[in-house]
Amino acid sequence: MGYGMASSLLRAGHNVYGFDVATTSVDRFCNEGGLRGTIEDVLPTVDIAVIVVLNTAQTESVLFGESGIVQHMKAGTCVISCATMGPSTARDLAIRCAQNNIKYLDAPISGGAIKAAAGKLSIMASGPADTFAAARPALDAMAETVFELGDAVGSGSAMKSVNQLLAGVQIASMGEAMTFGMKQGIAPEKIVEVITASAGNSWMFENRAPHVVAGDYTPHSAVDIWLKDLGIVLDIAKTEGFSAPITAVAMQQFIAASESGWGKEDDAAVAKVYARNAGITLPGVK
Amino acid sequence: MGYGMASSLLRAGHNVYGFDVATTSVDRFCNEGGLRGTIEDVLPTVDIAVIVVLNTAQTESVLFGESGIVQHMKAGTCVISCATMGPSTARDLAIRCAQNNIKYLDAPISGGAIKAAAGKLSIMASGPADTFAAARPALDAMAETVFELGDAVGSGSAMKSVNQLLAGVQIASMGEAMTFGMKQGIAPEKIVEVITASAGNSWMFENRAPHVVAGDYTPHSAVDIWLKDLGIVLDIAKTEGFSAPITAVAMQQFIAASESGWGKEDDAAVAKVYARNAGITLPGVK
Repeated sequence: MGYGMASSLLRAGHNVYGFDVATTSVDRFCNEGGLRGTIEDVLPTVDIAVIVVLNTAQTESVLFGESGIVQHMKAGTCVISCATMGPSTARDLAIRCAQNNIKYLDAPISGGAIKAAAGKLSIMASGPADTFAAARPALDAMAETVFELGDAVGSGSAMKSVNQLLAGVQIASMGEAMTFGMKQGIAPEKIVEVITASAGNSWMFENRAPHVVAGDYTPHSAVDIWLKDLGIVLDIAKTEGFSAPITAVAMQQFIAASESGWGKEDDAAVAKVYARNAGITLPGVK
Repeated sequence: MGYGMASSLLRAGHNVYGFDVATTSVDRFCNEGGLRGTIEDVLPTVDIAVIVVLNTAQTESVLFGESGIVQHMKAGTCVISCATMGPSTARDLAIRCAQNNIKYLDAPISGGAIKAAAGKLSIMASGPADTFAAARPALDAMAETVFELGDAVGSGSAMKSVNQLLAGVQIASMGEAMTFGMKQGIAPEKIVEVITASAGNSWMFENRAPHVVAGDYTPHSAVDIWLKDLGIVLDIAKTEGFSAPITAVAMQQFIAASESGWGKEDDAAVAKVYARNAGITLPGVK
């Protein structure tokens, strides 16, 4: 995701430095016109830092770790924080940035690697008006849609959590529905044909059910992502006092899929849990 | 639904007799050009009988009850059976019809009253080729899309059950997601705006979440329909040996909604269960 977003920023004419623990990604980026440097030399010169990592721990490490960026940035620099995390965590990070005179935009992203590379992400963002203004050139280059969710850091992350609740539940439900139909003798490709034209359809069903039909579990988005993202949803729910029973059950199916050895496969592999429990064979699965 | 489908048949130029326990519906239909008669006089003359009732018990009563239609129909007449039921029930009814030389098309419908009135339903149909051929004039008049699911009675009902699994789960998930966002302080109309443009979207979310925003629980489709339809899904699952945990949990939320006095309200009222459990107030709900 980060590589595609950096490329989108380049195409928009910005000077963009790439940092990644995977040095091959940085090499590739530099071959396309990206810039290379050290944290110490580069960070004092930048206007915007876009952080695209997996989770809260990585975000905190990038910002405040031993070789973190905040200590090197000039006052007024803007951080665009894109990892999925709980709203209260986002607020904590924003407060710590503010103590260092750094602006923090709560800006979880949605859309996947292909949309990232095309500069067509959806970004669910919240933060003060001057932070939005500072972030705008980067947002415009990376996103097709920026949902502006008010001036309170945390609202962006809250909205992302609502989206992830639905997306995760609908992927697991796709597995439940596809195997339920197959158990009754319907061909999986016929289920996709009918459901995508019916009221049972969802964005995730339409996107993921064809992976089951094709027996192709190349990880566009992996099962284990949902252990993290539905984990965040359920953490928020517990903290806020919210009963989320459907999400909790969907989570169990992803845990079972992961523990069965399918954690690095495409998240459509949650269907394998259902198939095994129902004694049926999925296309392309031995 | 039945009234709209009968009107669509009329518009297509067929001679259509209307039968309904609600005589006002029959009166209204006859004012539009529909025909009226008794079961005894009319049924021996018809080519096709379309049965649009709530469930298996009503379908069986219409076909084989004391004043049922099969005893009066001539050999080769075609029954189009539209109620949602389990595949094995559909097969049983088809066998009993065949014993009376009556053709039976397993033809559950999807789309609601407005599409029914416009002749734009989706019909998930299965049955022998000669039954399809006999039913074709009526199918063409009533449906925008006829999914032809093979020659085995039961496949239409099986596909409908897959659709209802997803539709029911997604309505309950809509309630879970909307209230989860509201509990975190997001305005419900903002949730609808963002989710309908994001990967968390579903046909049901887009259709039902606006009812929650408007606080309008006029029953376009009632909570209690899901006690029936998810009940059928879970009955099939138990009979076939299929574990459907997400469906089972969604069912609990509809049961709770019904028992809380909201069974005759729009199915979006499942959100009220979540709101009460989370201590939040929905728009327009006291």
